[in-house]
Amino acid sequence: MLEISRDYINNLKDDIAEGRDSAIIALLADVHPADIADVFEELKSEENAYVYKLLDKELAADVIVELDEDVRELLLQSFTSKEIAEEVLEHIDSDDASDMIAELPEAKIEEIISHIEDEEKASDIIDLLAYSEGTAGSLMAKELVKVNQNWTVAHCIREMRKQAEELENVYTIYVVDDRGVLLGRLSLKKLLFSASTTRTIIKDIYDPQSIQTVLTDETEEKVANIMEKYDLVALPVVNESGQLLGRITIDDVVDVIMEEAERDYQMASGISEDVESSDGIWTLTRARIPWLLIGMAGGIAAAYVIGVFDIEKNPEMALFIPLITAMAGNAGVQSAAIVVQGLANNSLRMEAITRKLLKELAVGLVNGLICSLVLLLSSIVLDFSINLSITVSVALLSVITFAAVFGTFVPLVLNRYKVDPALATGPFVTTANDIIGLMIYFIVGNMLMTSVVA
Amino acid sequence: MLEISRDYINNLKDDIAEGRDSAIIALLADVHPADIADVFEELKSEENAYVYKLLDKELAADVIVELDEDVRELLLQSFTSKEIAEEVLEHIDSDDASDMIAELPEAKIEEIISHIEDEEKASDIIDLLAYSEGTAGSLMAKELVKVNQNWTVAHCIREMRKQAEELENVYTIYVVDDRGVLLGRLSLKKLLFSASTTRTIIKDIYDPQSIQTVLTDETEEKVANIMEKYDLVALPVVNESGQLLGRITIDDVVDVIMEEAERDYQMASGISEDVESSDGIWTLTRARIPWLLIGMAGGIAAAYVIGVFDIEKNPEMALFIPLITAMAGNAGVQSAAIVVQGLANNSLRMEAITRKLLKELAVGLVNGLICSLVLLLSSIVLDFSINLSITVSVALLSVITFAAVFGTFVPLVLNRYKVDPALATGPFVTTANDIIGLMIYFIVGNMLMTSVVA
Repeated sequence: MLEISRDYINNLKDDIAEGRDSAIIALLADVHPADIADVFEELKSEENAYVYKLLDKELAADVIVELDEDVRELLLQSFTSKEIAEEVLEHIDSDDASDMIAELPEAKIEEIISHIEDEEKASDIIDLLAYSEGTAGSLMAKELVKVNQNWTVAHCIREMRKQAEELENVYTIYVVDDRGVLLGRLSLKKLLFSASTTRTIIKDIYDPQSIQTVLTDETEEKVANIMEKYDLVALPVVNESGQLLGRITIDDVVDVIMEEAERDYQMASGISEDVESSDGIWTLTRARIPWLLIGMAGGIAAAYVIGVFDIEKNPEMALFIPLITAMAGNAGVQSAAIVVQGLANNSLRMEAITRKLLKELAVGLVNGLICSLVLLLSSIVLDFSINLSITVSVALLSVITFAAVFGTFVPLVLNRYKVDPALATGPFVTTANDIIGLMIYFIVGNMLMTSVVA
Repeated sequence: MLEISRDYINNLKDDIAEGRDSAIIALLADVHPADIADVFEELKSEENAYVYKLLDKELAADVIVELDEDVRELLLQSFTSKEIAEEVLEHIDSDDASDMIAELPEAKIEEIISHIEDEEKASDIIDLLAYSEGTAGSLMAKELVKVNQNWTVAHCIREMRKQAEELENVYTIYVVDDRGVLLGRLSLKKLLFSASTTRTIIKDIYDPQSIQTVLTDETEEKVANIMEKYDLVALPVVNESGQLLGRITIDDVVDVIMEEAERDYQMASGISEDVESSDGIWTLTRARIPWLLIGMAGGIAAAYVIGVFDIEKNPEMALFIPLITAMAGNAGVQSAAIVVQGLANNSLRMEAITRKLLKELAVGLVNGLICSLVLLLSSIVLDFSINLSITVSVALLSVITFAAVFGTFVPLVLNRYKVDPALATGPFVTTANDIIGLMIYFIVGNMLMTSVVA
């Protein structure tokens, strides 16, 4: 792994500014395309365009596949449609190619594709563009090795030479019938060990065991779950008739898994867009302002709640407002997070919803009891008034219990109505819990503070 | 993918209770080991032991590898050391075998290993047990295909037949010299296409290009980063002299990636142990109580802050306490989360810390200004007193700005001192921000509320 130092980047920038092409080529020699992509992220877009033209075409194409989307977009803007077709798309897999141009305007896409000389590649890309984002179809590549069950081993090896030429990793050889229906697979290992008996028919050596497949419209989450569960490195995609259309490879799925995890994490932290700390001030602001505004609306609502319950009569009660809201939020988020995670990794067992809620009720009660007792003792030791201590402890027990159940309930309901359950760990539930927690606190307060005073 | 229905499980349970072995075998026929493992999670431990003995040895071993740790532990308790050795460990890869027994007492481990008949496997397992958890050494399997550069293609294929017999996926053939030093790799594809010219020497056809490797003591996070970055399905592990010791496969790394993401997510949600919603009440309680107690300590501290600033003089100020604490927490967690995520996926660019902090200051100011203005207008429209409206708005601007900078600063500092930066999205920073936010609010309040009144 190349550690990109500040010096390395500065040297490169100087070389670019001075047009020292051979020095640039020397600096990037033997550097992995993924590392060159990292270097590109540190350079300006004109600098990238300059370096890009110096690279070997194949290497350059590998680099552009690895680039972050925003950096790539800027770089591609300096290319003509013909250059995009001939210098980029012709050298990369169909799935990367279609991803790369999918966001462009219709007319531009057509123009680019018209410049692709390899007709099969062009039609593969057009096919892939038809699948909507987030489906198995949009994740798959058309490139794969596929052999007919009636071929001989010798024929098969001959055909594979052609098919596999452009494939970096073969993983599996798919066996199909005359109509292209997927029948099973043949391991390279087996083929290798049969290579001396070249007249053997594939039908007699392939593995016809039922093979995991997905349809083109399966969600990418499901694809990731299947590949993770069955430890697959490649997953074939078929249509309704079982015809083999493409394959999804594990590296693309690793990206899906990481993106999903990041999205859930960002949701839980109240960030609404995919941002990185290196993004601009405006992007960072836009990603955060929605939750802040929701939080503020919640805060104003909370002010009303406090106002209605006439804090001026019992100003003492103000002391524990932060404790109540913090605990309501925390307990709710904890419960919600466990459910969200269970839904995300498919580990939610088959307990009925009511059983889950009852269990959360129990957990909430236990947590609530522990916290209330600790709080009661501490506040007496710390010399808060006895009325206030009892009020806060009773309220806390109710608040934690309520929040635990509510936090479990909301993501389950969201999930049932096909809304992303991770929303439940975000602004809405936290804010709702804050407000409901305060209500509980003041209702308990109104009963206990006055009754004991009276 | 098998959808496990309640009925399916109930049928199976009945069959087990009645001892209908052939019905059980029929129910599980053609079910993937990973799915059988899911079924096991729904059964009692005695039921699992019963079913397990009915399965074919190879299949049974595949099932046990896929089981959740806690379910597996219970199941293994019903096995003798000899059974564990002969019926489980002999049939699975060395890395899975060593993981499975690593947590057992020393004496038990020795007893189990003494029953393994395959001496090479036994010594592989002993080797692997020596690596500490979370390192490349503990992730790797000893099983791989390795050939000497001086062999002919024919010799190579002959040797591979032996080595690959037990290997499910070959991925790559590693080429070594006489001392076992890793030189490069040979793709199966290439070997296949050279299979007809059997007297070719491996040296002449392998790819000597520098190959990504890791040392045994590399962290699993780094391993995951490398494999993800370079899209690898297998990564060879070497010692300091470059000798090939084993290989790490992508399926193990996918698990590492998912666990890491879950850990970060749980940290952000205030859950301190790896729990699932199906765990028991006590486990669920124990995982949550630490953060709740920290939050409570924070709440009590907050009560002191409010007490010191003498809320009874300006009880009106209590109304906006929830707003201030919510916003302080939110803004802080947002900033922290972006840094934590950047550190986790290595995407933090090389901006200096001071530049990052300055940027966060700017983002905080922009967010703070927007929120303050919105709040000022709303609170005037909603007819809160003008003094209070101004106080809250000014305080809010300072609180958001401070929280944004503080939230960025803390994870960077934690990371520098090798503490998990994800702590910063958890209890400590949220609680600290709450308290500091309140201080700012009351300091501003003491200045503005009185000055305007005077």
